[in-house]
Amino acid sequence: MSRMIILTEAELRNVITLNRDAVGCVEQAFEALATMAVAMPPILRLDIPEHRGEVDVKTAYIPGVEGFAIKISPGFFDNPKLGLPSTNGMMVLLSSQTGLVQALLLDNGYLTDVRTAAAGAVAAKHLARENSTVAAIFGAGMQARLQLKALTLVRPIREARIWARDTAKAEAAAADLTKKLGFPVTAISDPGRAIAGADIIVTTTPSEKPIIEAGWLAPGQHLTAMGSDAEHKNEIDPAVIAGAGLYVADSLKQTRRLGELHHAIEAGLVASDAEFTELGQIVAGRTPGRTKSDQITIADLTGTGIQDTAIATLAFARAGAAKAGTTFES
Amino acid sequence: MSRMIILTEAELRNVITLNRDAVGCVEQAFEALATMAVAMPPILRLDIPEHRGEVDVKTAYIPGVEGFAIKISPGFFDNPKLGLPSTNGMMVLLSSQTGLVQALLLDNGYLTDVRTAAAGAVAAKHLARENSTVAAIFGAGMQARLQLKALTLVRPIREARIWARDTAKAEAAAADLTKKLGFPVTAISDPGRAIAGADIIVTTTPSEKPIIEAGWLAPGQHLTAMGSDAEHKNEIDPAVIAGAGLYVADSLKQTRRLGELHHAIEAGLVASDAEFTELGQIVAGRTPGRTKSDQITIADLTGTGIQDTAIATLAFARAGAAKAGTTFES
Repeated sequence: MSRMIILTEAELRNVITLNRDAVGCVEQAFEALATMAVAMPPILRLDIPEHRGEVDVKTAYIPGVEGFAIKISPGFFDNPKLGLPSTNGMMVLLSSQTGLVQALLLDNGYLTDVRTAAAGAVAAKHLARENSTVAAIFGAGMQARLQLKALTLVRPIREARIWARDTAKAEAAAADLTKKLGFPVTAISDPGRAIAGADIIVTTTPSEKPIIEAGWLAPGQHLTAMGSDAEHKNEIDPAVIAGAGLYVADSLKQTRRLGELHHAIEAGLVASDAEFTELGQIVAGRTPGRTKSDQITIADLTGTGIQDTAIATLAFARAGAAKAGTTFES
Repeated sequence: MSRMIILTEAELRNVITLNRDAVGCVEQAFEALATMAVAMPPILRLDIPEHRGEVDVKTAYIPGVEGFAIKISPGFFDNPKLGLPSTNGMMVLLSSQTGLVQALLLDNGYLTDVRTAAAGAVAAKHLARENSTVAAIFGAGMQARLQLKALTLVRPIREARIWARDTAKAEAAAADLTKKLGFPVTAISDPGRAIAGADIIVTTTPSEKPIIEAGWLAPGQHLTAMGSDAEHKNEIDPAVIAGAGLYVADSLKQTRRLGELHHAIEAGLVASDAEFTELGQIVAGRTPGRTKSDQITIADLTGTGIQDTAIATLAFARAGAAKAGTTFES
């Protein structure tokens, strides 16, 4: 007989919001990854091409932390035709000491949305110029919106542009975000123009060929690419990666295999064993982040199990304090 | 908002028993693995050595089957000191079409116990001599007991021996099984003597060095090794594998990396790319199983995601028919 807490998406939304706490939580996770004997095995990935479906399972154990999450993230890209969201999922929180299930976090992907956007904030905090005021966001989905909100938590953003393949969606997102964030957000249909003059660029698309071309980036800009979480995804011209003043991976093991770096390696522009800084090393102060105002900096985010364990642990602790959730025995 | 069914261990025990149906279900899964475009990614494995803990996550998708399972299997070997079982776990059943969670099977490892034992029956059915009456079981835990019961479903077993490192445990299991199965089961403290005269030998231990020595096996015997599900585990002298008349893997990809075969490859006795039959190919009639009564046959079972998907799908269908379970919305 084991006893666990079940938390619904609504209960999780009550205790976890994309705010400075969530950013701090994910920042600490990256620091742990750089400084502790974290165990983070390769992502388990299942593809179901018949239904344009894919599932990623991620996990990570942080020594000394009482629980670890196993996160199940399905993406089924024909779902919108059925009136369902493309992405979904849940997390299982297990005890690090006994392996018993402590909690089922039935978040429908909400915690993933938050921890992914929070990583964008951590990247901007350590890599974008302090006086960054203009953001350009590529994509018009949930993550595009959250990435822009995340930037406002760490930089004095006053203006933003949205580019998306579907201009109507970009316009709807821009109108919505202008209202929500209180500064002008404009849809721009030419990707090069969206980038010109931006201080921070964030790409959030599932694109399979580069949207951002080499030569578009200007000195001083910071780019976070978070769309590529699988071998076939690619948002950035490999030459941009190869030519960056500072390239930073969330997990170098993962970006060599899945991220934008992977395409730069495939194109022969970067050696497969070339060493690059990881975000956690910068957070921990072991290597510098941006050192010059005219550097072009790139953060390549593939999404890590350590972020899942961090946000799940925070959600579970807060739900406990709020006495939220349903106790279930089996 | 998504809706799922939660099934407890008690509810799952009501609908799934280790019987001929369960064996047939797992047999079909192996056949699918050999004949269909099954997707079965490498196992995700996390180790937590501080607590002698390990977690395996397995999954597999069978084309045309409505759901697929993601199975979380923790093993924490200090748990008995805390009065808890070492192994545990649960399965999540997702829709193959939408990725939505259909059911949470909170089985505490019960379905894994059943599908693992059922694989032992499938191996014996296709590899052991038809007139096998004497079984030797290595190990005295839950899986040792279930493997013996599983053999009785496919062969006319009339006598069994139990060997375990801890003789008291072997004696307790033997007494218990004699009562349950209705034929004599004896604890034997010398492993070589346990094997002598047995028709079928099944090893179920977490041993890290060989228990079964080369030279102990006699013509006509069948051996199923199911304890080695990780790189460091090893029950059988590699020379036994190299010298077998017929070696069969549940999944050759897995046994090359995790099974007894892995140790034979490491010892330089078998080439790392040597081809061997998989159990599913024999079930499907594509390659023969045992062809001679004096062959020594070996089944190397590491445990596959396809077994999990098969048993979870059966359990979910039966629970639906029985209107069992709790509906949960999130």
